Amino acid sequence: MALKTPGEFKESLRDGRVVYLNGEKIDDVTTHPQMKIAVETAAFDYEMAEMPEYYDLAVVEDEKTKEPFSRYFHRPKNAEDLLKRHELMLTASRLNYTTTPFAREMIDSFNGCVVTAHTMGNKEYIERTDAYLEYLKKNDLSLAGAITDVKGDRSLRPSDPKQSHPDFYVRVVDKNKDGIVVRGSKMHITGSPYLNELLVMPSRNMTEGDVDYAVAFATPVNAKGIIQIAHPFDWHRGSADFPLDVPVRSHTDAMIIFDDVFVPWERVFLCGEWEHAAMTVYNFAYMHRHTAVTYHIAWVELIVGLATAMAEYNGASRAANIREQMTELIYYLNTMKSLARASCMDCVMHGGIAIPNPVTANVAKYFYANNYHNVVKIVEDICGGILTTAPTYADWQNEETGKLMEKYLIGRADASAEARLRILQALRHYPCLGTELDVNNIHAEGSLMAARLTIYSEARKDLKLYKTLAEVLSGVTKMSQEEYFGLVRELGELGKA
Amino acid sequence: MALKTPGEFKESLRDGRVVYLNGEKIDDVTTHPQMKIAVETAAFDYEMAEMPEYYDLAVVEDEKTKEPFSRYFHRPKNAEDLLKRHELMLTASRLNYTTTPFAREMIDSFNGCVVTAHTMGNKEYIERTDAYLEYLKKNDLSLAGAITDVKGDRSLRPSDPKQSHPDFYVRVVDKNKDGIVVRGSKMHITGSPYLNELLVMPSRNMTEGDVDYAVAFATPVNAKGIIQIAHPFDWHRGSADFPLDVPVRSHTDAMIIFDDVFVPWERVFLCGEWEHAAMTVYNFAYMHRHTAVTYHIAWVELIVGLATAMAEYNGASRAANIREQMTELIYYLNTMKSLARASCMDCVMHGGIAIPNPVTANVAKYFYANNYHNVVKIVEDICGGILTTAPTYADWQNEETGKLMEKYLIGRADASAEARLRILQALRHYPCLGTELDVNNIHAEGSLMAARLTIYSEARKDLKLYKTLAEVLSGVTKMSQEEYFGLVRELGELGKA
Amino acid sequence: MALKTPGEFKESLRDGRVVYLNGEKIDDVTTHPQMKIAVETAAFDYEMAEMPEYYDLAVVEDEKTKEPFSRYFHRPKNAEDLLKRHELMLTASRLNYTTTPFAREMIDSFNGCVVTAHTMGNKEYIERTDAYLEYLKKNDLSLAGAITDVKGDRSLRPSDPKQSHPDFYVRVVDKNKDGIVVRGSKMHITGSPYLNELLVMPSRNMTEGDVDYAVAFATPVNAKGIIQIAHPFDWHRGSADFPLDVPVRSHTDAMIIFDDVFVPWERVFLCGEWEHAAMTVYNFAYMHRHTAVTYHIAWVELIVGLATAMAEYNGASRAANIREQMTELIYYLNTMKSLARASCMDCVMHGGIAIPNPVTANVAKYFYANNYHNVVKIVEDICGGILTTAPTYADWQNEETGKLMEKYLIGRADASAEARLRILQALRHYPCLGTELDVNNIHAEGSLMAARLTIYSEARKDLKLYKTLAEVLSGVTKMSQEEYFGLVRELGELGKA
Amino acid sequence: MALKTPGEFKESLRDGRVVYLNGEKIDDVTTHPQMKIAVETAAFDYEMAEMPEYYDLAVVEDEKTKEPFSRYFHRPKNAEDLLKRHELMLTASRLNYTTTPFAREMIDSFNGCVVTAHTMGNKEYIERTDAYLEYLKKNDLSLAGAITDVKGDRSLRPSDPKQSHPDFYVRVVDKNKDGIVVRGSKMHITGSPYLNELLVMPSRNMTEGDVDYAVAFATPVNAKGIIQIAHPFDWHRGSADFPLDVPVRSHTDAMIIFDDVFVPWERVFLCGEWEHAAMTVYNFAYMHRHTAVTYHIAWVELIVGLATAMAEYNGASRAANIREQMTELIYYLNTMKSLARASCMDCVMHGGIAIPNPVTANVAKYFYANNYHNVVKIVEDICGGILTTAPTYADWQNEETGKLMEKYLIGRADASAEARLRILQALRHYPCLGTELDVNNIHAEGSLMAARLTIYSEARKDLKLYKTLAEVLSGVTKMSQEEYFGLVRELGELGKA
Repeated sequence: MALKTPGEFKESLRDGRVVYLNGEKIDDVTTHPQMKIAVETAAFDYEMAEMPEYYDLAVVEDEKTKEPFSRYFHRPKNAEDLLKRHELMLTASRLNYTTTPFAREMIDSFNGCVVTAHTMGNKEYIERTDAYLEYLKKNDLSLAGAITDVKGDRSLRPSDPKQSHPDFYVRVVDKNKDGIVVRGSKMHITGSPYLNELLVMPSRNMTEGDVDYAVAFATPVNAKGIIQIAHPFDWHRGSADFPLDVPVRSHTDAMIIFDDVFVPWERVFLCGEWEHAAMTVYNFAYMHRHTAVTYHIAWVELIVGLATAMAEYNGASRAANIREQMTELIYYLNTMKSLARASCMDCVMHGGIAIPNPVTANVAKYFYANNYHNVVKIVEDICGGILTTAPTYADWQNEETGKLMEKYLIGRADASAEARLRILQALRHYPCLGTELDVNNIHAEGSLMAARLTIYSEARKDLKLYKTLAEVLSGVTKMSQEEYFGLVRELGELGKA
Repeated sequence: MALKTPGEFKESLRDGRVVYLNGEKIDDVTTHPQMKIAVETAAFDYEMAEMPEYYDLAVVEDEKTKEPFSRYFHRPKNAEDLLKRHELMLTASRLNYTTTPFAREMIDSFNGCVVTAHTMGNKEYIERTDAYLEYLKKNDLSLAGAITDVKGDRSLRPSDPKQSHPDFYVRVVDKNKDGIVVRGSKMHITGSPYLNELLVMPSRNMTEGDVDYAVAFATPVNAKGIIQIAHPFDWHRGSADFPLDVPVRSHTDAMIIFDDVFVPWERVFLCGEWEHAAMTVYNFAYMHRHTAVTYHIAWVELIVGLATAMAEYNGASRAANIREQMTELIYYLNTMKSLARASCMDCVMHGGIAIPNPVTANVAKYFYANNYHNVVKIVEDICGGILTTAPTYADWQNEETGKLMEKYLIGRADASAEARLRILQALRHYPCLGTELDVNNIHAEGSLMAARLTIYSEARKDLKLYKTLAEVLSGVTKMSQEEYFGLVRELGELGKA
Repeated sequence: MALKTPGEFKESLRDGRVVYLNGEKIDDVTTHPQMKIAVETAAFDYEMAEMPEYYDLAVVEDEKTKEPFSRYFHRPKNAEDLLKRHELMLTASRLNYTTTPFAREMIDSFNGCVVTAHTMGNKEYIERTDAYLEYLKKNDLSLAGAITDVKGDRSLRPSDPKQSHPDFYVRVVDKNKDGIVVRGSKMHITGSPYLNELLVMPSRNMTEGDVDYAVAFATPVNAKGIIQIAHPFDWHRGSADFPLDVPVRSHTDAMIIFDDVFVPWERVFLCGEWEHAAMTVYNFAYMHRHTAVTYHIAWVELIVGLATAMAEYNGASRAANIREQMTELIYYLNTMKSLARASCMDCVMHGGIAIPNPVTANVAKYFYANNYHNVVKIVEDICGGILTTAPTYADWQNEETGKLMEKYLIGRADASAEARLRILQALRHYPCLGTELDVNNIHAEGSLMAARLTIYSEARKDLKLYKTLAEVLSGVTKMSQEEYFGLVRELGELGKA
Repeated sequence: MALKTPGEFKESLRDGRVVYLNGEKIDDVTTHPQMKIAVETAAFDYEMAEMPEYYDLAVVEDEKTKEPFSRYFHRPKNAEDLLKRHELMLTASRLNYTTTPFAREMIDSFNGCVVTAHTMGNKEYIERTDAYLEYLKKNDLSLAGAITDVKGDRSLRPSDPKQSHPDFYVRVVDKNKDGIVVRGSKMHITGSPYLNELLVMPSRNMTEGDVDYAVAFATPVNAKGIIQIAHPFDWHRGSADFPLDVPVRSHTDAMIIFDDVFVPWERVFLCGEWEHAAMTVYNFAYMHRHTAVTYHIAWVELIVGLATAMAEYNGASRAANIREQMTELIYYLNTMKSLARASCMDCVMHGGIAIPNPVTANVAKYFYANNYHNVVKIVEDICGGILTTAPTYADWQNEETGKLMEKYLIGRADASAEARLRILQALRHYPCLGTELDVNNIHAEGSLMAARLTIYSEARKDLKLYKTLAEVLSGVTKMSQEEYFGLVRELGELGKA
């Protein structure tokens, strides 16, 4: 058991994986001009473990063997563990130039399987998940989670014969004594082209007829039959942009096709238990919505900073309406931060693992995703039309236009034209504004509605107690004072660890 | 030093205080048919200290003398103290049938003076505030805070000669060796007609010309020259309402006139230091916005419960849009709860007192006040028109109409007409819906704008750091990696205790 | 055929009707101390017809006989007719001290039956509705519309045996050669205690099993078996209020029980045609949502005025945030006005009657109802806490407190304490703020969801065209330029008369 | 006087103008691979005049000479003229594949000068503007409006010596008997690289010190000293995209530098009358906010169509939450449409020109801009993550990945993978979603705050009347019934032509 160096991590990605990008197959993701940016982004997770200042945050030592392993592989047992993990993810994102490394945050998906195994009381699955965790620790692996199926017709179940074909959800097409063979396709899988392992699970509830679709497993991404179509990214940087000294960080995602992939039994964590399919993805989502709100904080900090800079450069920061807008940005950011940490504080235990409070974690995700577009509107309003109409770096380099820009695009006396143009460029690129983050905010970790449905279903007990309170205080139900005080006690315990 | 019984507390209110209500002077607030409701509401604070289960929450013992005193008189030193105080206020509200006792929550105003005294380094004020705290402890007193002046023309300063007269803000009209004489009027003062002491402070920033208006002090409410005009309340309960077995709880407030009231020097905590006027009220507001969000939680729990009951009684709780609305209510309530506690966790030290995080506490207040009317809309939408058009208890008692109501106003088979009518009555009365709470939400603890301005000014350091981050990542400012990592450390420390 | 005088209208209400209020049966609604306020409110409709200035607006003359009759009984044939009717309702509301007379606005419900009769092509129903209209004209009658059933369990159909009893929706319990006998109860019926006729129709879609519930008819309100339980109102005015010289205007509503009421065939407009039940209420709602947005304009004008007055009296009207809030109020009011008139301009013909554009009329209703609580929040924010805490008229009359109020409650030098207190009183009373209008906004004319569902279903054709446009412009569907231009023509015709 | 053909229009652009793009000077905008797209987009205005079906809409004939000229050059005299102009702009946008030609919509800026000239009663300016209009008609010219200055420090006035230099706002640097010489820079000027004339005006109010900055004039864009830096556009289409049969339409804008440009007196419409600077831009904005909401309708129709298509292709269009979201989109679109037309209906006369109602036009602009980001959120939510993560056309062309996409990216049985990918591509490109339109919505025609400020200042008379109403109905002001009815009449006239 040993921590990998960033170099060893990169080396591990040269494993014959099948990855396409923009219609071409990539030979080596670590050297491909675009993909290597994503590789560096993920590699920071390994780099951080080597930074003495953050060692205690990033690394846990085995209680018995004292061998070090990534904190992501430590099963959280209480609020403190979750707060540490929160701090690790947020600090890593900040250090990594506001982009989460995302090399192992998807341990959330594996933990979803672990919790399910324990809830089912399935001894075999418990042993397999324990063994897989040891394997991850020992080899200091990275992993992606593959959840969202391509779905076909959303109004039909996976096994509905009215679907154009039966492969819209990943399913078991064969089994033998050594393992299973799976077919299907998953979409929106962040990081899979440049991480080691893939944790696959159902994306929805299943019925008895969907039994073949109730399957969860782990597999190396270079397994035979796995084909990835990665999404072009970082397209928004080019010759028209001011060169930066800051390392470029960016992730991408892939559509993954499982073209009859073999998975040995020791990596199968669900197979046919359709009643537990929904629970598996639910258990994952609880954790992952907290993860997501955590690393988005770093992006929002940057957005708020860019808006502040622009307001000041424009000489506008003291105007009443600009201050109002800055207040809205802070309100947004601080609520995100408070909700993210409150969900750790009020964690609950599922299958021996402390998970962020399910209501609060979903409230946090919903809050930031539902209000993000308003943040975009505010920042655009602060910046003004120049956010879109600013001349480019090419114009800057042209002698005649460059000198005109230098004269006319100054803001406040101490804000050079170049400084203003760089802030605007950053707002367009990070990607703070524009399609990617917009969509990511809405859809990553499930839709707005997914968060809302979870909030509702997780709060059933709360609602029951509030209703009892209402019935007592409206005289519908009579209660002795003693009983009423008992009710108050129950209210006091709601949502606490 | 001894805790007062509820009876002793009531006895202490028979002190010759001058209180008018609806045009008539009240002889004894503890026996006046309406005012005694408010007295009982406040007296619960004393009652709770006698409940063994809550003794440790409500009472602190002096480290040296071991004498018990109310937790409100314990100066919070850390996050844990604040979380305890939060739990005390919330639990008291719940036990007191969702209405905060508010007998000593206004210690916030006194603490505002204490913090100011320490920040000024004014030894005399420090000694006076220490002595007054001992007095409060020893006599187990209750207190109201008097902040809001009547103001006159809002666009003019207190001392502006264009004001119709100079008394729109409380001011010092005379001084001698024993003390000062004050004149003016304060509005919206919750509880003052039925509490012991009054803590008076400026309601705004002052300039040099306003020197006489920069005054803070404590006084018993029965001091000569103090005239209170209390506001009628609980008017919404009467013969048309179903009788309740649950104790009625309600507060009211008063306009207080200081008709040349003498205050001895040992109770004067600010007098002429106009530069510190704003800070005093600011220091109060930091704490009190957290206090307010805390006790509002209990009301919102009840509102959510009433809405849940109504949805179920109507047989509507499984409809998609009703579930959506319930989700919104839970989202609102849980965000309030998380923000309230997060503001304790991330407390800051001011003048030796731990105060809730100023940004987060204001975010919390703003969140609940700004979204409250949307909650009203949702609850009204869930209930339907019957919330307004329901026949009354008088109709219920009339034999002919009563039997028709009993038949026709049933909802779901198990929801009797009476149960539905009682829930609706409670929604109109608690007062959950309607003018009072609407206005209270907006204006108590300062306006929406007051919270926003505080959010902004308290986040200046945050904005500065975010801006630096933006400048580095946009290439405006060059930073070594080491410097960048230092910036990340600073970001990590933001808003932490 | 002759127009009734206001006195004749009042006389017509002394007809033996059975009306209860607060548990007591009312002898004569025109003299009952509370109910006569509502009678006067409705009587203004008759008064206006006598005002020469408004004769052309309020009265239409029969093309042949030249006999005059109320414009409400004129079937609108085009946009101009609708705009006139809009102006009539809005002007009447303004003249009537911002409260709609509502004596015949509910002709909307009868028109719903007319449209249905023509759409069905049912000759008998067409003749009956023609005859009934003549009867209304000839006798210059007023009428209420009775739509909302009491419903029982909302998740069950009217005829579902799981309902506690079969009478939660008005139904036919007997038929003979002369007519039908109906049983059931309707709620929230504005004006029925003090108007002449009642137009009853189903409140929802029906299935075959609900055949007995598919019934629409007209009846005088004094028919045998009709029992009304009216809702207490105007409770918010009393000895604590400043006396007003302005006439008090207010409406109330009733729960109506049909205790086996006989209806002759000539007044039956739907009986058993369950497929047309939903269409009948839909046809009514189209028109009535426009009616509602029209008369609400007058209330909102008053609210905006009260807020403006308060802002100025406080000396706050030039503050940036107050101007911002005033802007929001104007934005709200002007959007209501524009949408109301646009829905007339873009009317559609249903069964020979011009009805306001169904999408726009519902958009208008949804806009004002969905944003109303935000208006309340803003007005409360502008007024400050004094909206709730202001001392009363009783305090004003008391010599000692009165003179203190007179001194301390002045605002800007020219804004007396009395003026400020009167504006605040008006805000609490009109009823601008508080439960009644809140709920009325949400629920009258159907819930928010009802408006939304109508918007959606009425826009199906729009969506189909927009989708085609999308498919062409995204290259999914190929179209010649000529075909594309044809599509543009269709787009241009959408939602036009 | 004769209408130009599209070819003649293009020919007229080969006039030696100085335009840079991406650091390079463009020889001929009509043949430049990117710029010619914009040229075609504008040329459609000339094309439409040749379409017999739209001749009456696009062309007006001179009353005397019967010579035809563009409707844009017809000074609107009443609501009907404005509604026609509205229909022209909206129809042109739809015909031009949802993009406004924008060849002469900026006549709004010239009209702003005309109104100002008449309001000033300046005979010379009136004659010059009359003559210039004849020149535009006779030569069938296109024109851009140049309003927004580069501003420098926003907190300083144009002439403030603390500005880094005096040229942040366009100013007069020299005058002689023939004309004036101007210097400065304007930003965000849509269309100027490929239109004939430039109408320049101040962008803000001026004080006496700013006298040199109070200047408005017209100039051909090829005048000596005019340098344009155009903004790259249409960058989002490339080899990764499905080829389209539909013509590509897109505009761009430029930063314009006036490097001591000579303007003859007959083209100067304001020069030194600093008191009228604000009025000039105000008069322009009134008209242009209506223009903008008009052509945005066509874009929103497309967005709604794309969302509808995607919902249906996904088999999701019947889900309750998707229907809810579609309802929100229709509500948005129809409110835009209603407000745009209502602002024509309620036009006001300024300087002999009918202009859209200033309050309503600003309400319309504010409504669509303020709610646009919510529309983006909804559309993204409907589409799902695939909006961002979809593989590209390059992947589609690759044999192996293409066949996998074809299989797995089908939605509902009748929705091919290609159809879904094309809709998604269109959503990313039109540009419906993403930076450009976001920013355009907020900033074109002035910021959100600009619209709000106009709403407020234009509604002063309304507020005064509403306040009077409030004072009467609250008893603050006594009024006879007759006077009250007079007030009602005034209310009825508010905002009408």
